[in-house]
Amino acid sequence: MIGVLSNAGVMESVMNSAEEQQPSSPLSNSWSKKQEASKNQEPKPVGGFVLVHAGAGYHSESKAKEYKHVCKRACQRAVDRLKAGALAVEAVTAALVELEDSPFTNAGMGSNLNLSGEIECDASIMDGKSLHYGAVGAISGIKNPVLVADRLLSEAQRGKLSAGRIPPCFLVGRGAHDWAVSHGIPPCPSEKMATKFSLSAYKRNKRKMELAEKLDTGHNQTKKRRQSSETENGSGCLDTVGAVVVDLEGNVAAAVSSGGLAMKHPGRVGQAAHYGCGCWAENTCNMNPYSTAVSTSGCGEHLIRTMLARECSAAMQSEDAHQALLEAMQNKFISSPFLASEDRVLGGVIVLRCCRCVEAPPSQNIQGILVEFLWSHTTESMCVGYMSAQDSKAKGIGDTVILESATKNTAALLSS
Amino acid sequence: MIGVLSNAGVMESVMNSAEEQQPSSPLSNSWSKKQEASKNQEPKPVGGFVLVHAGAGYHSESKAKEYKHVCKRACQRAVDRLKAGALAVEAVTAALVELEDSPFTNAGMGSNLNLSGEIECDASIMDGKSLHYGAVGAISGIKNPVLVADRLLSEAQRGKLSAGRIPPCFLVGRGAHDWAVSHGIPPCPSEKMATKFSLSAYKRNKRKMELAEKLDTGHNQTKKRRQSSETENGSGCLDTVGAVVVDLEGNVAAAVSSGGLAMKHPGRVGQAAHYGCGCWAENTCNMNPYSTAVSTSGCGEHLIRTMLARECSAAMQSEDAHQALLEAMQNKFISSPFLASEDRVLGGVIVLRCCRCVEAPPSQNIQGILVEFLWSHTTESMCVGYMSAQDSKAKGIGDTVILESATKNTAALLSS
Repeated sequence: MIGVLSNAGVMESVMNSAEEQQPSSPLSNSWSKKQEASKNQEPKPVGGFVLVHAGAGYHSESKAKEYKHVCKRACQRAVDRLKAGALAVEAVTAALVELEDSPFTNAGMGSNLNLSGEIECDASIMDGKSLHYGAVGAISGIKNPVLVADRLLSEAQRGKLSAGRIPPCFLVGRGAHDWAVSHGIPPCPSEKMATKFSLSAYKRNKRKMELAEKLDTGHNQTKKRRQSSETENGSGCLDTVGAVVVDLEGNVAAAVSSGGLAMKHPGRVGQAAHYGCGCWAENTCNMNPYSTAVSTSGCGEHLIRTMLARECSAAMQSEDAHQALLEAMQNKFISSPFLASEDRVLGGVIVLRCCRCVEAPPSQNIQGILVEFLWSHTTESMCVGYMSAQDSKAKGIGDTVILESATKNTAALLSS
Repeated sequence: MIGVLSNAGVMESVMNSAEEQQPSSPLSNSWSKKQEASKNQEPKPVGGFVLVHAGAGYHSESKAKEYKHVCKRACQRAVDRLKAGALAVEAVTAALVELEDSPFTNAGMGSNLNLSGEIECDASIMDGKSLHYGAVGAISGIKNPVLVADRLLSEAQRGKLSAGRIPPCFLVGRGAHDWAVSHGIPPCPSEKMATKFSLSAYKRNKRKMELAEKLDTGHNQTKKRRQSSETENGSGCLDTVGAVVVDLEGNVAAAVSSGGLAMKHPGRVGQAAHYGCGCWAENTCNMNPYSTAVSTSGCGEHLIRTMLARECSAAMQSEDAHQALLEAMQNKFISSPFLASEDRVLGGVIVLRCCRCVEAPPSQNIQGILVEFLWSHTTESMCVGYMSAQDSKAKGIGDTVILESATKNTAALLSS
């Protein structure tokens, strides 16, 4: 049995104050940046912030440049929307469209093919302000599944349909496709969504499966049979995409999109379409001092059964974000009784949390929004990028910082 | 806006001791039955217990007899299995098959038709012992969707598939149908699953929708438009089915099955296929003193967004089960911030919880299993039945007791 350890990378961005800090803990890739605030004003907009991921799994060095580029473009898309005054949901959707459009990610264009050689995608989105949610599962022939999830969310916010019918929050398969098209989202021929890369991966996986099943012939139906040469999921290709955003007003949103496991059974739905599992966003309220947004990646079944997005969000209400995420990953995922029978527990999360905080004596009425962003994963690597929409005074935050070494610094996979 | 209040009916069955009690609270339909235990023995099997529901919604008086009969038959099926030594999962599946087979329930045979006049079913099952879970969504042409969910659960328990692939826990649509058939579950022509009743309800609903949409012509796209004459969901026909079981060994399991909302969009998946929303089961463990099993019914979107099954299960770890369920229904459902924009919050739950308890001084080493069963709903009625598999000494528990008056005693729908 293999035990899995996880460390979280933690970064803090304290907006609207004025000093720079060094990492607070040697365990975390952590730094803070503060910027002066005007006095005697209402809380100043923080300018917004976006954190994206291109999956927890194994990212080959040969594609590192492409992953970095797509993460940067996705961040830029979200930031552009935030600067134009868009709410978090719109910005997070913009980031996801960019991530889905990349042929290098396992989402939208270039998704993994299923057992039948078809592409079926999952995606979901959650708005921390309205707490509404939209999701699609096993949808084919739509280039950007996140746009369907987003449209479901906005339709649900409009209230009931004719004759008192309750609008759906989750659609799957052919019905999801038809709903999307009837709501103005153009269909895309499936063959255009497969890439040279996804097609060759399908052929390799198919050969591996055939070989594995050949080797099984004459053997007992034991675990041994099931541990033969693995498909590319087994070795860690779980490059789902996702993003979390806080907008000018302090609202949070989260989204996730995935082509699912390679060689999955047709109709299989993973965590990216599962409420509480793929993404979660909740604005601050009476009971919660922090607004939180989470997006996950990894083995869908593991993330579903542990409801990892929601668990991480709930954990983030305790004071020390870094410690809270480490504990959540350890107790609610790695050591979860729900995954007790699994030999490897594969997953990663990105987390954003914010709170309004008073940075000076009440008489001065200076407030700001504290934005913390973190990630953690049990997989060999996780591809993460982030960007602030703050004005140019925010040196060192204004540009995307892709953590090339996220892998080495933040995750460890140990045999025990 | 309409406020909704809910009361819980609470019943306790304390096995393996020897005295009868009157209701402990005037607010609850509550009674206890105790039976003497042998001394100096290991915890004695309680014989098993099953609690079923045929939906929270509106149950017409004209069909009351049929509902009672099907609940009784479902309980009997589960009890027969328990007496034969079956585990909770097998017994809960047997109960669900009976509930699905009834043409009067909105599950399996006789399910609601969707917008296109087709039947698409959702079902899920959870095993409190292994914490495994199986679900199908928007599946057509299968008479007993719960059998597919159950098969997914048992396949997942067997471990990985060939070439290291992770078995799915959730399948939808055509893929789910094909998987079922390839695993020996016979297909059933869709036209055989529709009943005279479901077809005539479809025609009525279609007319109502056409009328509503006609009335809207020339009106603004306002709430007014959406509040026109309602389909039969609007008036409360939400008769999903479900069951919770504890077996001879004290393991719990839960299941749920639904044809979904009438006139739903094709591909719409409701709470019955949603992890944490339709059913939940967790055996006792270090952290949890109680084993709990929950099955829900009502408006799928409300039950999804509040994750009601899991919330109720978590709440049941506090000492006073009745109070805990009332508070969970109030705080996590009726007053949930996730449903703040809804004018009516429609749902019901059945709950089973058990713990091993010492009923006498430690020197006597008498232990038993305390089984408590409860339900609560915000809808006009909820159809509930239960049965104990205990031996004939358990007078008053051995037979199904259908609460004809569950409606009047346990729910109130108030305008405020």
